[in-house]
Amino acid sequence: MQPIKILLEEKDMPDKWYNIQADLKVPMPPPLHPGTRQPVGPQDLAPLFPMGLIQQEMSQDRWIEIPDEVRDVYTMWRPSPLYRARRLEKALDTPAHIYYKWEGVSPPGSHKPNTAVAQAYYNKQEGIKRIATETGAGQWGTALSFACNLFDLECMVYMVRISFDQKPYRKAIMEAYGAKCIPSPSPHTQAGRKILEQDPDTPGSLGIAISEAVEDAASRDDTHYSLGSVLNHVLLHQTIIGIEAERQLQKAGEALPDIVMGCFGGGSNFAGIAFPFMRYKLLGEKPDMRIVACEPTTCPTLTRGPYRYDFGDSVGMTPLMAMNTLGHGFVPAKIHAGGLRYHGAAPLASHLLAQGEMEAVAFHQLECFEAGVQFARSEGFVTAPETNHVIRGVINEALKCRESGEEKVIVFNCSGHGNFDMTAYQAYFSGQLEEHHFSEDQITQNMQALEGFPVP
Amino acid sequence: MQPIKILLEEKDMPDKWYNIQADLKVPMPPPLHPGTRQPVGPQDLAPLFPMGLIQQEMSQDRWIEIPDEVRDVYTMWRPSPLYRARRLEKALDTPAHIYYKWEGVSPPGSHKPNTAVAQAYYNKQEGIKRIATETGAGQWGTALSFACNLFDLECMVYMVRISFDQKPYRKAIMEAYGAKCIPSPSPHTQAGRKILEQDPDTPGSLGIAISEAVEDAASRDDTHYSLGSVLNHVLLHQTIIGIEAERQLQKAGEALPDIVMGCFGGGSNFAGIAFPFMRYKLLGEKPDMRIVACEPTTCPTLTRGPYRYDFGDSVGMTPLMAMNTLGHGFVPAKIHAGGLRYHGAAPLASHLLAQGEMEAVAFHQLECFEAGVQFARSEGFVTAPETNHVIRGVINEALKCRESGEEKVIVFNCSGHGNFDMTAYQAYFSGQLEEHHFSEDQITQNMQALEGFPVP
Repeated sequence: MQPIKILLEEKDMPDKWYNIQADLKVPMPPPLHPGTRQPVGPQDLAPLFPMGLIQQEMSQDRWIEIPDEVRDVYTMWRPSPLYRARRLEKALDTPAHIYYKWEGVSPPGSHKPNTAVAQAYYNKQEGIKRIATETGAGQWGTALSFACNLFDLECMVYMVRISFDQKPYRKAIMEAYGAKCIPSPSPHTQAGRKILEQDPDTPGSLGIAISEAVEDAASRDDTHYSLGSVLNHVLLHQTIIGIEAERQLQKAGEALPDIVMGCFGGGSNFAGIAFPFMRYKLLGEKPDMRIVACEPTTCPTLTRGPYRYDFGDSVGMTPLMAMNTLGHGFVPAKIHAGGLRYHGAAPLASHLLAQGEMEAVAFHQLECFEAGVQFARSEGFVTAPETNHVIRGVINEALKCRESGEEKVIVFNCSGHGNFDMTAYQAYFSGQLEEHHFSEDQITQNMQALEGFPVP
Repeated sequence: MQPIKILLEEKDMPDKWYNIQADLKVPMPPPLHPGTRQPVGPQDLAPLFPMGLIQQEMSQDRWIEIPDEVRDVYTMWRPSPLYRARRLEKALDTPAHIYYKWEGVSPPGSHKPNTAVAQAYYNKQEGIKRIATETGAGQWGTALSFACNLFDLECMVYMVRISFDQKPYRKAIMEAYGAKCIPSPSPHTQAGRKILEQDPDTPGSLGIAISEAVEDAASRDDTHYSLGSVLNHVLLHQTIIGIEAERQLQKAGEALPDIVMGCFGGGSNFAGIAFPFMRYKLLGEKPDMRIVACEPTTCPTLTRGPYRYDFGDSVGMTPLMAMNTLGHGFVPAKIHAGGLRYHGAAPLASHLLAQGEMEAVAFHQLECFEAGVQFARSEGFVTAPETNHVIRGVINEALKCRESGEEKVIVFNCSGHGNFDMTAYQAYFSGQLEEHHFSEDQITQNMQALEGFPVP
């Protein structure tokens, strides 16, 4: 019997997050104030975020201590197991060693609570009583609801109406954690009321939901705003995944991995697994390590989007960030991987891509579901549509190893389960899952809106 | 930071199941042939089950070795974690030490694969190519689909039509594992066609689905039938839960528990946690240990059903078993805990109840959801409606400890997650969850059908 799970005891859980900003060869271009176009300072962000998070957003320290209160909550599911995918290796007849971090063990079922818990903690510390956020498919809203409940904070989730209607169970699980979840656009905000007046039957959009959550937070002293990806501090909190994985690989007797992979939407689960390993690449200890982000062809931010200053939201309320972007007006196709439908990308990941430290690859929806089903039938876990993108990428790399005979070590982040996404699998099995196409024209058009913006 | 998860390494996973038949003070009444009323022999069961399982069904050996091939699959999620429910204890302000085995980590999300994997293995060994089964809410069908896929067996699931229509994602996850799932009654069987002729719009029932699966298996040489609870060999396979829990409690520095609890439908998850501990009670090492089964008031098999010989199915095709029963014609109310809606009870559990070795208690649906929500808000995991019954029982016992000041050790089986049951939570939060009532008259009437049957 060969072991397949590599576990860590709670006492061996990391006590620091890893901040890759400390090891960048070239510093990142700073975020700019949308009005003045000058670098934003801590005070610019204070109406929306607690100072604890703003400091992390800007910190150049390599290691940042995880507060005991956050670690206490992490132990509810962390350290998460690292699996050796022996059954998948066998099914692929590959000499590659495939390992995955299984983040589906968290109560909300994904990697998202790694940052939700930290964000709730720092807000609580600062005396905040309530957090507002937006959610698309519901993964993030669920995680923040879970975290707020544990720190006795109110949680208000604006959920894109079309998803709210299609996935009523997402509202139910947020309510199980004591949160309030309403469809967006809503009559609760000026932004929402304006849209509803124009079109009472609108399906809503993530851009609108962000506007509502930001307006909600900005208009109340007791409330802050929270984001589930993209920002530096969010990526920082996810690095516990990779730090654990490194320790677990050592326990399994492996050297540093040859390839590290994650699916890519805003960039947080990718950075979580990748950055702690990328450190060894940046420091020259393993210069040929490949770090690969897997994204959808219909929202090809890293593979097709130019590296530009752009807004983080659709409406243009946020600072300008230097990132790969399809343009803040980009409307992605309705693929089932709701978590990967974002016009931009984490500035940190975009910077590292521009520096040549990582790669990106894009996959079609159908080939990702095919990979997800192959994974379920070998490894047992039915994964989220987002996660299926990295599984597609890993299977492709493992098949290349079969051709070349190379015993490469591949590590990936298996970011969450698909228990709330079975309608997507249902569509796949009934042959009704559509393949969507991406038109380059959209980018050209969207880039016109960025004319005159600074160039990083 | 106090530890909350007690883990075992794969190498410390039990290599034997525990057969409580070896330690019974009084032997069980045997199952009887429905025609001859004589004890059934191995050959009577051979058309439906492989000899490996039939031997286990009748074995008097205390320890039965778990085949390596089964242990290999178990490591996909086992040993499962034992949690100390510190947050729940704090919320209840109780001196009790509450521990739970978390079986929701299995890929299908419940304890069911512990037996599904073993059953698939022994069928494969005997050259069987295909297994037919029934499923109500879908928990069992999902687990058997998962197991059959791993042993390269075809799996055919007859799913009660009303559940099939209400929960399409259950079909999708079974398909993800390569199984076929069709609504019952179906045109595939004589039994199904007959019912459809009489009523084309019938919602179906578990009794009908069992008849279809048994007919399917009996009519094909390459096919066997599989049951997810009730039978001795099914309970046997689940004992790995309690054996692991015992080792984990030792690791946590606890003596034997004072109270062991599980929710109760057919009895398999209950027996899984309870029987290995009950051994110490039967052997006199801890005679005051309390073993408590928690069932719904609307299907109060153990608390109200007499101990009688009755059929295992509604139609009367199975052997007669000595068990607590509400009568095989019993039609339970449509509570959301679909896994607890069975007219009978495991003969082993019924026998132990009759011998005074265990207790049973019944709870209403609403108080169980209330307990489940309290659990989710303290421990994080949103549990299945079935599991909420034991959580209700545990909370009540822990509150008694608060009154008495006793530091009792309570262990329970947290049998599965509620990710596929969010419609039930949705009904609960919207105030639309109905309380159902049970009428004693039903039992009186059903018992008339048992007149002339032998009495155990």
